[in-house]
Amino acid sequence: MKSGVFYGVGVGPGDPRLLTLKAVELLKAARVVATPCAAPGQESLALAVAREHLAPGCLVLPLYFPMTKDEKKLEQGWAQALAEVCAHLDRGEDVVFLTLGDPMLYSTCLYLLQRLQKAGYGVKVVPGVPSFCAAAAAAVFPLAAGEERLALLPWPEGAPLSPSLLRAFDSVALLKVASRLDEAIAALQQAGMLEESVLVSNCGSPGEKISRELKKLAGGKEPVPYLSLILARRQKEV
Amino acid sequence: MKSGVFYGVGVGPGDPRLLTLKAVELLKAARVVATPCAAPGQESLALAVAREHLAPGCLVLPLYFPMTKDEKKLEQGWAQALAEVCAHLDRGEDVVFLTLGDPMLYSTCLYLLQRLQKAGYGVKVVPGVPSFCAAAAAAVFPLAAGEERLALLPWPEGAPLSPSLLRAFDSVALLKVASRLDEAIAALQQAGMLEESVLVSNCGSPGEKISRELKKLAGGKEPVPYLSLILARRQKEV
Repeated sequence: MKSGVFYGVGVGPGDPRLLTLKAVELLKAARVVATPCAAPGQESLALAVAREHLAPGCLVLPLYFPMTKDEKKLEQGWAQALAEVCAHLDRGEDVVFLTLGDPMLYSTCLYLLQRLQKAGYGVKVVPGVPSFCAAAAAAVFPLAAGEERLALLPWPEGAPLSPSLLRAFDSVALLKVASRLDEAIAALQQAGMLEESVLVSNCGSPGEKISRELKKLAGGKEPVPYLSLILARRQKEV
Repeated sequence: MKSGVFYGVGVGPGDPRLLTLKAVELLKAARVVATPCAAPGQESLALAVAREHLAPGCLVLPLYFPMTKDEKKLEQGWAQALAEVCAHLDRGEDVVFLTLGDPMLYSTCLYLLQRLQKAGYGVKVVPGVPSFCAAAAAAVFPLAAGEERLALLPWPEGAPLSPSLLRAFDSVALLKVASRLDEAIAALQQAGMLEESVLVSNCGSPGEKISRELKKLAGGKEPVPYLSLILARRQKEV
């Protein structure tokens, strides 16, 4: 029997109206829709965005991807998710895997895709609107024009941001920045990017917040939501 | 009378099915749709992507953005486009401006948006799927996972790419690379990114081509289409 195809589908940043027509078409025809969850029983945001388009009788398969640094637990979680997906593919059923934003950028989908490809399954990817583009749109914040260079820097942990790296770019998107806001503000200031910067939290959801005066947020005066990113650019006319 | 609102709307990379629901909704309601053209009378690709959703009687306003390095001609072109848009806004008509990809990334929309904002008009932006995400999806090429860093480097002219800049990133998208393919290949090789790289041309159109062996393209053996980009990443498991 012919195996099913795995579709990694980006549902965009969270606003259901930012789904693409192609994603909606796949959702409507899907018999099996897989969706990542951080904990068993937890609602998936990607599923919430897509739910209204699911056909009656469609099977929703929640896949548990543990949020941990423990490599063994991570591997176990992924192996389990992979096995559940393969069980459907082996029965000839296509599996539509939902992922927030774009599947090729920082998604759980990547782990499954590469393992499925290695195992010889057919995989297809439907791109989605990434969160940094949605944040830029919400803030009407131009990211790059002409030959300008843009860096995407996820930054929840790890080494400090070097100002020389920032200086090699015209604009940057600092992702997952909530826990290191003061450091981000200092690095942007050193790189001459603080004047034109914006913090976007919970983009596209009812709790969306756009803060244009980052300096005032330094020192932890206000709590910053987990889903926050900073867009910044060197000051100039475009 | 209240001025109309200017909508910068991303129509995605070129495949009409990658329009968002929000873009379609705006297109269906639009009375004035503006679309960038490189030369008078030239068909706009953004318009071709969106055309099937336009309401009967919708006014299509082609705006001529000259492709030139001559600053004076550029400014004249933009000023003329701005005046045409403002004429409609001043009559209280909303203007939906179509742009390929995402409006905040390398679009003609940026020039108008900033000038309109300064002049006090209301502007809104609808994000779209950027071309580098669509290319990554077509090639099933993971761009960044976890805390990996991605650089977007448009590279039609200007200074050589420094390998140390590339080395600061886990993956890169080299945009507008057609005219400097050999240099790109050499820079990627120096940075240890050539093994895992892909050239995507005319993404999403019938002429789409995905080349996984960049080395074989060196030396100009095959012509590379203008709409080409390279995705590359440092070799490792994700």
